[in-house]
Amino acid sequence: MVKESLREKIAAANEKALAAMLSCQPVWVDVRSALDVLPGMTANTVLHAGPPIAWEKMCGPQRRGVIDAVIYEGLANTRQSAKALVENGEIHIAPCHDYNAVGGMAGITSASTPMAVVRDEASGKEGYSQLFQGPRGQLQNRDDYNKAAIRQWRWIETVLGPALQAAIRARGGLDVRNLTAKALQMGDECHNRNSAGSALLFLAMTPSLIRSCPASTVLTECIEYLASADQFSLCISMAAAKVSANAAKGVPYSTIVTAMARNGVEFGIKVSGLDEQWFTGPANRIEGLYFSSEWSDKDSVPDLGDSAIMETVGLGGHVQAAAPALQQFVGGSMARAIELTEEMRQITCGVDDAYRIPNLDFAAAPVGTDIRKVVQTGVTPVIDTAIAHKKGGVIGAGQTRAPLECFNKALLAYSDRYRSKQ
Amino acid sequence: MVKESLREKIAAANEKALAAMLSCQPVWVDVRSALDVLPGMTANTVLHAGPPIAWEKMCGPQRRGVIDAVIYEGLANTRQSAKALVENGEIHIAPCHDYNAVGGMAGITSASTPMAVVRDEASGKEGYSQLFQGPRGQLQNRDDYNKAAIRQWRWIETVLGPALQAAIRARGGLDVRNLTAKALQMGDECHNRNSAGSALLFLAMTPSLIRSCPASTVLTECIEYLASADQFSLCISMAAAKVSANAAKGVPYSTIVTAMARNGVEFGIKVSGLDEQWFTGPANRIEGLYFSSEWSDKDSVPDLGDSAIMETVGLGGHVQAAAPALQQFVGGSMARAIELTEEMRQITCGVDDAYRIPNLDFAAAPVGTDIRKVVQTGVTPVIDTAIAHKKGGVIGAGQTRAPLECFNKALLAYSDRYRSKQ
Repeated sequence: MVKESLREKIAAANEKALAAMLSCQPVWVDVRSALDVLPGMTANTVLHAGPPIAWEKMCGPQRRGVIDAVIYEGLANTRQSAKALVENGEIHIAPCHDYNAVGGMAGITSASTPMAVVRDEASGKEGYSQLFQGPRGQLQNRDDYNKAAIRQWRWIETVLGPALQAAIRARGGLDVRNLTAKALQMGDECHNRNSAGSALLFLAMTPSLIRSCPASTVLTECIEYLASADQFSLCISMAAAKVSANAAKGVPYSTIVTAMARNGVEFGIKVSGLDEQWFTGPANRIEGLYFSSEWSDKDSVPDLGDSAIMETVGLGGHVQAAAPALQQFVGGSMARAIELTEEMRQITCGVDDAYRIPNLDFAAAPVGTDIRKVVQTGVTPVIDTAIAHKKGGVIGAGQTRAPLECFNKALLAYSDRYRSKQ
Repeated sequence: MVKESLREKIAAANEKALAAMLSCQPVWVDVRSALDVLPGMTANTVLHAGPPIAWEKMCGPQRRGVIDAVIYEGLANTRQSAKALVENGEIHIAPCHDYNAVGGMAGITSASTPMAVVRDEASGKEGYSQLFQGPRGQLQNRDDYNKAAIRQWRWIETVLGPALQAAIRARGGLDVRNLTAKALQMGDECHNRNSAGSALLFLAMTPSLIRSCPASTVLTECIEYLASADQFSLCISMAAAKVSANAAKGVPYSTIVTAMARNGVEFGIKVSGLDEQWFTGPANRIEGLYFSSEWSDKDSVPDLGDSAIMETVGLGGHVQAAAPALQQFVGGSMARAIELTEEMRQITCGVDDAYRIPNLDFAAAPVGTDIRKVVQTGVTPVIDTAIAHKKGGVIGAGQTRAPLECFNKALLAYSDRYRSKQ
């Protein structure tokens, strides 16, 4: 028997990993608190977006977010005492990704945070995401702690979360893959633009909300919130992307990326054949537009959030051609958007037949970023993303690139691990 | 003073007519019965889509629809007695267009029909359309009279109509031009595809519906109907298009088309400088797909309905490039869709800056069909449209062309009227 070459082993492994990712059937089935639902979650754990990072190195929104979460959970009464708890190691700080969860922007998630639960009907496994936390520029992502923010989080925890829980259970779940496929036909790339996805989600959920909502004030509040939250579907899509990406994990020899995430300081990736190890590089700045002229680059932090899980499963930057409206944020053009999507084909090893780009005669979306191809071409994944203020809050949107460094590191580690086996 | 040439007069007139059309600010403000709101409507009037047509020449869906409306309005108890009333001239039959109204497909509109009222905030004038009457393939447009149909119309008249009336009044109206501009960014061309427009309308109306709906069963029924009616926004868009097209009427020397409508036998147009005269040619057959294999061309009637008012204001077939998803109905491609939109630029005399086509780097939509250009080039307007069954009901969708004949006739009449004045 001829010995299988490394190249052949990789091809077979990548095929297997990608098939696992694409055969995932993510269904939004529930809303439950982080403490209830995240495996291993504790009352004094605070999760953040991106790869692991030491407390002292965290960017502004995450530092503030951790402190705010400690206070919100009742573990401390003042910022000072909260900080002391953190510094004394009494708060367990870890990436959302360690808990099969993802968090937009700062990603701060604590025990009481209501989580969207998305189940893979194929495997029964789950992915989780915090709920969208408010209109842009305001209270997003627990990094702007003040009375209005507390009121908003409390409302999400005690009103919206339970209402959505009842509604999604009454509905018997919502097929997220179907929602995403439809949104792609309606000008979303499902990362920076979620107008269609959120409208479709609202269409799908409203009848169930009306049937399952006990009090009319609760119903009115929830409906008004959801009707104005045109990024709401992203949190559901992210949880779905997380469980899909997880399905591709741990395939020996596979060079496919299974996570991309940023903490505002570093951009980290995981690779299927390299299990749970993070490979990082410096987070890039974002080219984009600020929502108000009061902000500029000096107010913002570099690339932040777990939302690059969308690019990990071939959405967002990978399918920019599906969302020409986004080009206005980067001074781009339809031609440029198509170019970027084609560029992503150079560094991916397959396509997702369920996700089609209408403007390209329904060509299938490129998916499955291969670290070899990234290193070989020097082309790194395009990430569509929001821009966070140093003090927290979303202040703009645009696009950036994953840094090459994390792919270089990953390929070296891969080489160490697998070449020696030959 | 140099005498102004005819060409200059036409250019100035067309500029004036088009400016009037584009400066219209259509706002959906009310729902009222046809008898209440259509100027000149009577209890024994039945309106139909398209140019005027004699009873004995009407296509199947319109003949059935007229009879059904006579019974529904309580003017007769049997089809036979209804037919006798019509044949004795006791029922006034006229085009919707004569009443500033438009009706999809057969367009049958009678005294009790609830009408969407769209007001031009610039002029105070109004346009009207019947409400969307049911999911595709079923009860649409009063041309399939049976117990289920009667129940549906009665429900629309007594439940949905009043609920929408209360909600739209409570909301203080809905800006239809804004809705249309957004829908164009989300894959609708706003004639055959209205998924985005209907979702956005649902988003906009639901909070008001919840606040203004007295009984929860009414609310639940209306929400469930609207959540499943992905063509609903078309009826609102059509009323808006009607009031916009009307604004361009009656400008001496203008060669711009102010109405296009079909009765399943003839395709008719009106021209700004030729006032209310219809110019007709034979309605073409529709190239498209049937929703079920049980139907074929032999079951369908030729081009039918007032919905070509959408192309009259530069939407639908004029902006096919905005809706690649529609190409599957005609075996087309993105390239073909773009080609058609560019073709429409050859026969129009301006663009609508508010209506942008994302896939063409947000190029403005071509608008203002000029009968001279149509005759000169032989290029006739592309019409996106549904396909009606001979016995009523929508059984497919596709595209067709306006017949050249009506433009030829119009240009002859124009020549008679204006050349003699030179």
